Amino acid sequence: MGHPWRVSWFLDDLVARAAERERLGLTRHLVPHTPASHGGLLDLAGNDYLGLLHRPDVIASAVAAARQYGGGAGASRLVTGSLDLHERLERELADLTGSAAALVFSTGYAANLGAVTALTDADTLIVSDAHVHASLIDAARLSRAQVAVAAHNDLADVERLLRDRSQRRAVVVVESVYSVLGDAAPLVELADLAGRHDAVLLVDEAHGLGVVGERGEGLAAALGLTGLDHVVLTATLSKSLAAQGGAVLGHPAVREHLANTARTFIYDTGLAPAAAGAALGALRALRHDPELPPRVRANAATLAEACGVDAPAGAVLSVPMPGPHEALAAVEEAAGHGIRIGCFRPPSTPDGTSRLRLTAHAHHTRDELALAAKVLREVTGRA
Amino acid sequence: MGHPWRVSWFLDDLVARAAERERLGLTRHLVPHTPASHGGLLDLAGNDYLGLLHRPDVIASAVAAARQYGGGAGASRLVTGSLDLHERLERELADLTGSAAALVFSTGYAANLGAVTALTDADTLIVSDAHVHASLIDAARLSRAQVAVAAHNDLADVERLLRDRSQRRAVVVVESVYSVLGDAAPLVELADLAGRHDAVLLVDEAHGLGVVGERGEGLAAALGLTGLDHVVLTATLSKSLAAQGGAVLGHPAVREHLANTARTFIYDTGLAPAAAGAALGALRALRHDPELPPRVRANAATLAEACGVDAPAGAVLSVPMPGPHEALAAVEEAAGHGIRIGCFRPPSTPDGTSRLRLTAHAHHTRDELALAAKVLREVTGRA
Repeated sequence: MGHPWRVSWFLDDLVARAAERERLGLTRHLVPHTPASHGGLLDLAGNDYLGLLHRPDVIASAVAAARQYGGGAGASRLVTGSLDLHERLERELADLTGSAAALVFSTGYAANLGAVTALTDADTLIVSDAHVHASLIDAARLSRAQVAVAAHNDLADVERLLRDRSQRRAVVVVESVYSVLGDAAPLVELADLAGRHDAVLLVDEAHGLGVVGERGEGLAAALGLTGLDHVVLTATLSKSLAAQGGAVLGHPAVREHLANTARTFIYDTGLAPAAAGAALGALRALRHDPELPPRVRANAATLAEACGVDAPAGAVLSVPMPGPHEALAAVEEAAGHGIRIGCFRPPSTPDGTSRLRLTAHAHHTRDELALAAKVLREVTGRA
Repeated sequence: MGHPWRVSWFLDDLVARAAERERLGLTRHLVPHTPASHGGLLDLAGNDYLGLLHRPDVIASAVAAARQYGGGAGASRLVTGSLDLHERLERELADLTGSAAALVFSTGYAANLGAVTALTDADTLIVSDAHVHASLIDAARLSRAQVAVAAHNDLADVERLLRDRSQRRAVVVVESVYSVLGDAAPLVELADLAGRHDAVLLVDEAHGLGVVGERGEGLAAALGLTGLDHVVLTATLSKSLAAQGGAVLGHPAVREHLANTARTFIYDTGLAPAAAGAALGALRALRHDPELPPRVRANAATLAEACGVDAPAGAVLSVPMPGPHEALAAVEEAAGHGIRIGCFRPPSTPDGTSRLRLTAHAHHTRDELALAAKVLREVTGRA
């Protein structure tokens, strides 16, 4: 046993910061769920948009993959961790989104870090929408590129930044459907803008895949943008696809480049077989149940009406609240009525506004929706 | 469909870079394995050190978790993605390593990014060993801290950097067992040095956990360092523990701080139930089969002798080769004799030296080891 050194700036400081968070109502608590409590509250907070997380055929696919391939991939994809299961998943993701190729990562976070860092260099300008996910912000920071933040969904701002740049390369980084406000990006215009200014458009379909489009192909595919050479998608397998993992989708040269240069791909263990299996099961469910995407969108519209906000572009609804304490109180009141909703509080919000965050799910029944709408009218003050 | 823009610097450039990699013998190919081919070659390349990846009790634990909790966690741990399964895994990881608390992440990469960024700020010096893993290098880049690289395992260099710093805070970042050379860090001396210079010591146990120590508790625990307030560990669940995921282990205030501030924890979906289940199964296997860690170390010593290198600190052996082409040729020759080994080539090596990378496994039989030793003597030129 070494000497019990007390580092002056360490634990006391962490404890003091925890007390300050508590005082400000900003403490994030880990409240573990047991399987029993999963059924206790109606979930309007998680990202299982299509209701596939517990579906027997999805679980069976995860189980079969674990039995056949093992508990983990065992190594980096570039050593011994590449399974035909991964390639099957890549082909199916590419097919669904109309992309030529896909590369699967261990998380969506890793996919975003890998895509942005590998497609940029010191002579690149990243034009990043103000509302993009933390993983894309971290990815831009981690890259060697210059980063410019464009006002949210502001095409003129994007165009100005692209036009006035001194860098040879530029990558415009957006999401198809944003988690903050639940709105969509003007992808057709952005793809055109990027092309005209010799730039790549990178679109994160985290909240679009499985929800937007006739077959849940996502917004970029629904708009016919995924065949374009200068459009690259990223996606997560942990929301609509009821698993874990992420993917980058685009031209085969992009896949080849990422497999050789993306550090979060090269230096990470391959995606666990069970997660790849669950995602494959979810993709099959999506093919067999074409009513899943329209159903989740209809449910989202019902919830939006109850909350007095516009129908969202995807499954995520955002309801502004006066402050973090009011947001937390609404979450607790809803829980008291059997409804689990979430909230966004600083520092998770780009503008300091606290919001209720609700998600629609394809599998909720008419009765469950009616209860949810009633409770939401009350807790958001629209009753 | 938008206009088929051709971005001047994009695909043509990626294709040209791929051709250049091919010319230099540096292309990394994804060679997918089918379940059948898994049994075809003796694996001395993957990180399944304890041979638990396909063990029926580990798979059964993964399967039970998927059935009980679903295909994925469904949301961030801070929204609805925290399961009692995660907390059980955290308690067991803390118990094994003699740590007071643990926080589980979706990958080891995410755990390292989260730990380093959340424990440092602009007034911090990160002193990073020259051989640390890509995830720790990226973590330091992503942080707001100043980064100084210390010569590998050079205590005097670490002390000089800590002593001469202008920053209030400092974090020394090392691995317990290094993947490049297979050697161990002088952790007792580093913990002492860090304590004397008002610094935290962060130790990545990726290659130590499950392999080093009487119970596979890792090097830091075996040396009695894990009770110390200023020592923080990270670990992966995807090597000895036959799953996917990562963890940060230390004082409960560290766990609380990371759960509230580590972006790769907050903004990521919780670890998939099947992965948590596989890791729990592996931890149980480790408790029930105390001969696993000594067996993998004995097998590593046998392989090291065959390759003419010193016995490694863990399960990873490193054999220097003249260049990338020779390393690749040796890998192919070994495969021709039924043995799968890996290699490290630039840019994965910190010093530009190409190396064979071999891993020992606890479950290899005496006959398998004898065959491996014979082949390795041949391909490394020690026959």
